[in-house]
Amino acid sequence: MESILPLLEQTHLAASAVRALTDTQKQALLLRIADLVLENQAIILAENQKDAEKMAENDPKKDRLLLHEKRLIDLAQSIREVAALPDPSGEILLERTLPNGIHLRKIAVPLGVVGIIYESRPNVTLDVSALCLRSGNAVALRGGSEAIHSNLALVAVIHQALDEWAIPRAAVTLLPTDRALMHELLTATRYVDIIIPRGSDALIQFVRKNATVPTIETGAGVCHTYVHRAADLDKAQAIVVNAKVSRPSVCNSLDTVLVDREIAEQFLPMLQADFDKWQVTVLADETAFPILEKAGWKRLQMAQTEDFGREFLDYKCSIKVVENLDAALEHIRQYSSRHSEAIISEDAAVCQQFIERVDAAVVYANASTRFTDGGEFGLGAEIGISTQKLHARGPFALEKLVTEKWIAVGDGQVRW
Amino acid sequence: MESILPLLEQTHLAASAVRALTDTQKQALLLRIADLVLENQAIILAENQKDAEKMAENDPKKDRLLLHEKRLIDLAQSIREVAALPDPSGEILLERTLPNGIHLRKIAVPLGVVGIIYESRPNVTLDVSALCLRSGNAVALRGGSEAIHSNLALVAVIHQALDEWAIPRAAVTLLPTDRALMHELLTATRYVDIIIPRGSDALIQFVRKNATVPTIETGAGVCHTYVHRAADLDKAQAIVVNAKVSRPSVCNSLDTVLVDREIAEQFLPMLQADFDKWQVTVLADETAFPILEKAGWKRLQMAQTEDFGREFLDYKCSIKVVENLDAALEHIRQYSSRHSEAIISEDAAVCQQFIERVDAAVVYANASTRFTDGGEFGLGAEIGISTQKLHARGPFALEKLVTEKWIAVGDGQVRW
Repeated sequence: MESILPLLEQTHLAASAVRALTDTQKQALLLRIADLVLENQAIILAENQKDAEKMAENDPKKDRLLLHEKRLIDLAQSIREVAALPDPSGEILLERTLPNGIHLRKIAVPLGVVGIIYESRPNVTLDVSALCLRSGNAVALRGGSEAIHSNLALVAVIHQALDEWAIPRAAVTLLPTDRALMHELLTATRYVDIIIPRGSDALIQFVRKNATVPTIETGAGVCHTYVHRAADLDKAQAIVVNAKVSRPSVCNSLDTVLVDREIAEQFLPMLQADFDKWQVTVLADETAFPILEKAGWKRLQMAQTEDFGREFLDYKCSIKVVENLDAALEHIRQYSSRHSEAIISEDAAVCQQFIERVDAAVVYANASTRFTDGGEFGLGAEIGISTQKLHARGPFALEKLVTEKWIAVGDGQVRW
Repeated sequence: MESILPLLEQTHLAASAVRALTDTQKQALLLRIADLVLENQAIILAENQKDAEKMAENDPKKDRLLLHEKRLIDLAQSIREVAALPDPSGEILLERTLPNGIHLRKIAVPLGVVGIIYESRPNVTLDVSALCLRSGNAVALRGGSEAIHSNLALVAVIHQALDEWAIPRAAVTLLPTDRALMHELLTATRYVDIIIPRGSDALIQFVRKNATVPTIETGAGVCHTYVHRAADLDKAQAIVVNAKVSRPSVCNSLDTVLVDREIAEQFLPMLQADFDKWQVTVLADETAFPILEKAGWKRLQMAQTEDFGREFLDYKCSIKVVENLDAALEHIRQYSSRHSEAIISEDAAVCQQFIERVDAAVVYANASTRFTDGGEFGLGAEIGISTQKLHARGPFALEKLVTEKWIAVGDGQVRW
């Protein structure tokens, strides 16, 4: 294929048809897709198998690629849940009559065409299509070549539902995976309204660098938990352990523990049993190191400068002893990726200061950073966690797949 | 200067001090700046004169560069008006207690550091600083070298006010104008939260192409007015003339008239007297051309393909005859820059269709596109008109200089 622009123009045209659907129609469309996913289970799994066979057995991406019966049931259920969420489009955000008599409204409308760039997970194809259609958007999917058979099978199912509703299939367009065509997608400002990269940091940085279409960065999470001198140490222990080991591969897991000097000798050894059990490697600064060494920790290393501000995505974390709240705040200002940050303290005034002064999408007092999630926050399925500040910050969910449109109705008004 | 990153880090640090100001303090700070602008009038005008002397007498930018007593009074007044606008930060956007007991709030908070890249107008220095400080933000100003003396004088006045409030001067930072340092600003994702380019299309495209910091595109306006067969032709005449000639150099002025074939012969000659008076050059398509030629129009040319989708910013427009609403909508879909689009029709159902189907920041029925403006919409001074769909669409005013922050207060909650 020489150019994907003709495909993207078709998607752009199809966006009008999706935008014109009513709330009830969009719900029904999603429920039909959920049914068809289950009805076409055999074909989908067979095509998924073709992708799986091409991948080396020990490839860590294999688990993310594989579909099986249970996963399809979960996916269908997730589509039904999206159908049940309130439609974010159509809401009147502002309404006023101007002194000149013009009736002005600002309403929430679908974005138009949402571009998604993702890697091996075929579930993204269904999740994202459901979220986009639910909110009245068309979607251009640019999945990875390693999942192409799975993605084609899933999109065929969506197309069947679109056919039944007489909506152009281009409303859900699966783009070719040629790397050379990526640049066209990233700069198709005429046809694509927003691009969301989902995947590795390398992918996100590539998109950020090359896109002229507005993007939402769903970026890395370098998450700190600060154990203040007035912390309830049992709570602190439970929260730090949970934030680190419950699911280290996700962006809201803990990367660095900051602990007040005054309580470091008392608190740090409290982590030892759990960290041992979960085989957590600790990179300790020069103050924490001797404390942990004395306690006889396994998997202990001296932290290097680059071990702060690093997202580990593994059973690994860095630990730093700080003088006080100000020092903790300064460390976080320097090293945070502004995703999720937590303080553990029983001093409400100190918590409030931390909350006000930390610049991050989500700031916690006395809870695990692992809660940063659209589902946990009651927003439904999410596309990712936005670590930038425009449009959406934190969980990027259905409610944010809209933009604003001003409507001004007059009776001949002019402005000289 | 080798790098502006140290300056930007200072601005980033100073953002905390601005963020910590109360609503009343921010108002008082702005009122003080307004007073100081007037008190320091002599110095400001003298420095502005230095810039003016360097510029050729016939340079069209000269008018935008020049300050004089009346302009300073207007600028001070505009700062007072910004002070009187409601503070957009601090608003609680969502509040709920999760089933696990975590108390969750989403609140509006300042963006942090706003970067503005602009050209010869020194008034932007004051306008933008006032909007940013009012909403609790620090600002990095990258003005043009042709206005450097004016900008230094104006920023000195702002710094005097900041000194009195013991806020670090870096809260309003004027960056050096070396072109080589521009790239650093555009990619300073660590210190700058948003960049807004104000100026020529070339500047906007340069920023869009090179920035990795999220940007708001305040872009070109290719604005259409569609005169439907059921239009009140007197209203249509008044609106088209107003939209074209009242201020052709601005982005909300008319570029293309679309007119239904059925009424073209009747309507188009109605524009002749006014267009003659204002010396408007018309680029007519093959159907409109003979009609206008027969009526004996001056300044008439046959439109070339590139005359549609073109922003004229001058006493010039293109005219095209269309079959019907669908043809008008298709033309707009292809050529619009999605800024402001209008229909003139007495048929409310047709107007409603146009409103729903046109994808633009502002859609008008029976009014001039010239109303697209923060002040006209009751939002106060604006930074520009956003033609993209993320964060802000249409007038980008004070209310949009905020982002969201999630605050989660728990009592030891963990997530397994």
